[in-house]
Amino acid sequence: MPPPDDEDDPGEIPYRRYDVPKQGFEDYWYPIICTAELKRKPKAVRLVGRDIVLFRDAGTLVALDERCPHRGVKLSLGQCSYPGSGTISCPYHGWTFDGSTGRLIAALMEGPDSPVARKVATRSYPVREHAGLIWLWPGSMQPSTLVDDIPEWIGRQETFFNISMYTDYKCNWRWLVDNWPQDHHAQYVHRNAPELMFQPQLPYALTLDPKPLDGNKGLAIKRSGGMTGADYPGLGRFPKNEWWRFMKPTGRGNVTGFETSKARTVYGIKNQSELWLPGLTVVGRLSGEYSLIQWAVPIDGETTRCFNINNWRRMGWRREIYDRAHYYLFRSWVHDRMFSDQDKVLIESTVPGLERLSKTDVGVIAWRKFAGTHARRPPGEHKLSVA
Amino acid sequence: MPPPDDEDDPGEIPYRRYDVPKQGFEDYWYPIICTAELKRKPKAVRLVGRDIVLFRDAGTLVALDERCPHRGVKLSLGQCSYPGSGTISCPYHGWTFDGSTGRLIAALMEGPDSPVARKVATRSYPVREHAGLIWLWPGSMQPSTLVDDIPEWIGRQETFFNISMYTDYKCNWRWLVDNWPQDHHAQYVHRNAPELMFQPQLPYALTLDPKPLDGNKGLAIKRSGGMTGADYPGLGRFPKNEWWRFMKPTGRGNVTGFETSKARTVYGIKNQSELWLPGLTVVGRLSGEYSLIQWAVPIDGETTRCFNINNWRRMGWRREIYDRAHYYLFRSWVHDRMFSDQDKVLIESTVPGLERLSKTDVGVIAWRKFAGTHARRPPGEHKLSVA
Amino acid sequence: MPPPDDEDDPGEIPYRRYDVPKQGFEDYWYPIICTAELKRKPKAVRLVGRDIVLFRDAGTLVALDERCPHRGVKLSLGQCSYPGSGTISCPYHGWTFDGSTGRLIAALMEGPDSPVARKVATRSYPVREHAGLIWLWPGSMQPSTLVDDIPEWIGRQETFFNISMYTDYKCNWRWLVDNWPQDHHAQYVHRNAPELMFQPQLPYALTLDPKPLDGNKGLAIKRSGGMTGADYPGLGRFPKNEWWRFMKPTGRGNVTGFETSKARTVYGIKNQSELWLPGLTVVGRLSGEYSLIQWAVPIDGETTRCFNINNWRRMGWRREIYDRAHYYLFRSWVHDRMFSDQDKVLIESTVPGLERLSKTDVGVIAWRKFAGTHARRPPGEHKLSVA
Repeated sequence: MPPPDDEDDPGEIPYRRYDVPKQGFEDYWYPIICTAELKRKPKAVRLVGRDIVLFRDAGTLVALDERCPHRGVKLSLGQCSYPGSGTISCPYHGWTFDGSTGRLIAALMEGPDSPVARKVATRSYPVREHAGLIWLWPGSMQPSTLVDDIPEWIGRQETFFNISMYTDYKCNWRWLVDNWPQDHHAQYVHRNAPELMFQPQLPYALTLDPKPLDGNKGLAIKRSGGMTGADYPGLGRFPKNEWWRFMKPTGRGNVTGFETSKARTVYGIKNQSELWLPGLTVVGRLSGEYSLIQWAVPIDGETTRCFNINNWRRMGWRREIYDRAHYYLFRSWVHDRMFSDQDKVLIESTVPGLERLSKTDVGVIAWRKFAGTHARRPPGEHKLSVA
Repeated sequence: MPPPDDEDDPGEIPYRRYDVPKQGFEDYWYPIICTAELKRKPKAVRLVGRDIVLFRDAGTLVALDERCPHRGVKLSLGQCSYPGSGTISCPYHGWTFDGSTGRLIAALMEGPDSPVARKVATRSYPVREHAGLIWLWPGSMQPSTLVDDIPEWIGRQETFFNISMYTDYKCNWRWLVDNWPQDHHAQYVHRNAPELMFQPQLPYALTLDPKPLDGNKGLAIKRSGGMTGADYPGLGRFPKNEWWRFMKPTGRGNVTGFETSKARTVYGIKNQSELWLPGLTVVGRLSGEYSLIQWAVPIDGETTRCFNINNWRRMGWRREIYDRAHYYLFRSWVHDRMFSDQDKVLIESTVPGLERLSKTDVGVIAWRKFAGTHARRPPGEHKLSVA
Repeated sequence: MPPPDDEDDPGEIPYRRYDVPKQGFEDYWYPIICTAELKRKPKAVRLVGRDIVLFRDAGTLVALDERCPHRGVKLSLGQCSYPGSGTISCPYHGWTFDGSTGRLIAALMEGPDSPVARKVATRSYPVREHAGLIWLWPGSMQPSTLVDDIPEWIGRQETFFNISMYTDYKCNWRWLVDNWPQDHHAQYVHRNAPELMFQPQLPYALTLDPKPLDGNKGLAIKRSGGMTGADYPGLGRFPKNEWWRFMKPTGRGNVTGFETSKARTVYGIKNQSELWLPGLTVVGRLSGEYSLIQWAVPIDGETTRCFNINNWRRMGWRREIYDRAHYYLFRSWVHDRMFSDQDKVLIESTVPGLERLSKTDVGVIAWRKFAGTHARRPPGEHKLSVA
């Protein structure tokens, strides 16, 4: 599926130069649902504009095109009538597809000698169950090894454990990713989030210096300079003197001293935050013991599934119990809802059209250019050369 | 109205060769509502994409274009202010139309000497009340005689009585009709319907032999061969051994022995089931004493009204009381809801696009070709020649 | 923004000759909300298809484009963080705009020395607070003086006081205005409104004689002749003999004798009712002490805000208390809801397309022609010459 490029779509204006497709990059692994959501019934999902049915049979996970090629009915309404065979049967006439290959192995209503069986195939998608999530590869290229192609925090599971949730945004995925490359919205939007409101104002007016990660997997954006307050002619001071900001910086609010932090010196983490293709961000802590991955998964051009994947370093069962309890009782609500929803309201309110970018958008521009240039895609699918 | 043919409409792909119009064939009688639904107030209906107002006055039934030609307001909001005159008055300025001709006979607000009166006419549609249904002829040709143009079971009323209900499907009418030409869905979809679940598996993998009915009114599809179970390589047996199927075949489940049945020998019924233009099916019983007519009425390209018209042979008042009671207490629920809704869920889930038809779709293909070739339409309206 | 002119839009058919734009005339003052609705939070409104944010700061009223030019987020979600400065700050990155000029005076997150500040401007709209309403000028021409450009009843406030409400219609604004130029709908639609049902039938089949007002501000339509009842061949009498019509004509029902009325002789009012550009009607009383202004405000091509502005001559505080009480207890319900909603149901039911206009539509045609010819607009924006 070539990326749509509607000349009249005002949502394309900011991205037209960069070859960043409206429905997302296809040749990547994407988390699509949490494993607990796939129960005994087949489940329909949508990813990069494709409708896909997921099911499990005898421990094997299967992903096929949702539409039966026979008469167009949705396979997700069907059943896995032959447990152990790894097949699903269309609810309409019993066309039965092999999950691993997508091949029609029986058209039940035509009898076992049906000539159509084994001559028809539907599309099968690479699919994995990993880190509490179900992962799909919607593209046409050979899939990569999942654990090697995603951040270490959600890769090999010996060192980390994860808890994930997601929220669907009514917006294009690129608007959500634009929210992440150090665009200075956090310092303003989240200054009154419960997580940050008692801490000092985060420094802003930073100088941003985007650098590609090893192997062009993404970008890290070094920050320097900046201020935590100033007088503005004709307005007054920003931020105002706010007596309740008595806490010391902690957690996400602790943004200085990374070079000498435990994360850097003990765990060898290279950047406090990173932005990865196809559209995710890793936000670490100075302790190096926790990170949040946010992943913009393009359902289609108008809907984006925002995953919040919380990751903790395994440090013994007592600590793990504490981390999990802290998440369920506090962080799941205070960050994954209250903090993230501050973004959601604004991003969903975006009116597509011309932009007037500026110094704080250096990371946004760098990201768009980087993504359009370096994203993995089938040979010949690049449409534009980017200056 | 020529049939729409949108090059970009994936719903047209399966029908493009056959000249079967998206909004239905116009020059036929269609049931549109049950007579009990038309009370003292005018009622708006929609048929083949046309908006029509129905009303009764002094025993006469009237159908006019819903839109007042004066300023475009809906006549269904108006009143029959002059009982006995067979007229309806537009609610906006009192333009008053004669029901039988559609002619404007007074523009009330212009006084009785208005020059516009009798110079303007709106479209009047042929309309009948028959067998508990209101019937409309939305086309431009001279209407046929209703009772001669529909199956005998709902034609002359001396021999049969009828009870009807309908459900609106969010799908094109052709998807619903495709459900009927012995496409083998019944053997699979309805095998667990309450009506059939205790009876043996219906035979499938039949050889289908479609034949036109006399006068090309439709098709009958002779069935032969088939099986009631088989082993499928790599899967197992279909159907599985189901201990609860202990009943003998009865009712719709009794599909063999038609040639020697009472229906054939006593009542002279030629086919156990038939498919009629413009899009209905008659499904009989071996007894010849009951039939179900299902009729796909195109409201517009996206909505279809599926009528279930139940028909019983008149066999004395005791039997009639029994048949009616049986319908209201049992069959109305078990068939017209539970059985029919099994189809509705699947048909409405259809994703338009390419199909991969096969041996069990012989009837579907025959129907599409037959309908496109033989449907009644105004001279010159055939667009395609069908090979 | 040139007025849209979609060749395929059936709603344009009646207006195509007249150059009356679908989204309304832009270079006029329009009431948009009641002043009580604009509280401490910025408020989003829509007018002639434009999205605008309103806010008040330190007694000054501001109207700016709703969309922040930076990244497209809605300013109405922002705050007036610096009271007294007349500014609003975008909720996303703190871009702060001056209300009176629209200029960006600080991009908070870039610090006070940001180069982008004062180089960017968003659109600022002329806005006023007057007669209990907030008024916007959405056009590009120099705004007129509000009180000189609207009817005297809502102009200078020494002589009159006003109470307003509005209802949003799901229809194009032109359909609503067409309801006003003496099109004879009142005599039919409202004959059973509580306000008129006990009074005699209003005369109809009038001869209409439209005349421009001084300065081509609008039209007055003189009425003469007419009847209050007649026999219609084939139908009967209209109106029927209705025993409950025992009241003498009063209020709006009193439509004769204007030339010798107090309104004419004492107050010098020239016309009992007038139709003004850009799309409002003034309906007076013989007493000259009350008028109703109805104003069709185009939200966009599909939605119209119908203001009912009730106006009373100031005649001492005792009378004012009575007038207000009478409005809140009686007229607000009986007229502004019950009477006006009779129109709303019909107008919203309009199906766009061809019309068949007639003698009673003389005022409608005159209005369309007058509006297309005489409406104020920027030089060169007339598209058509009107015969």
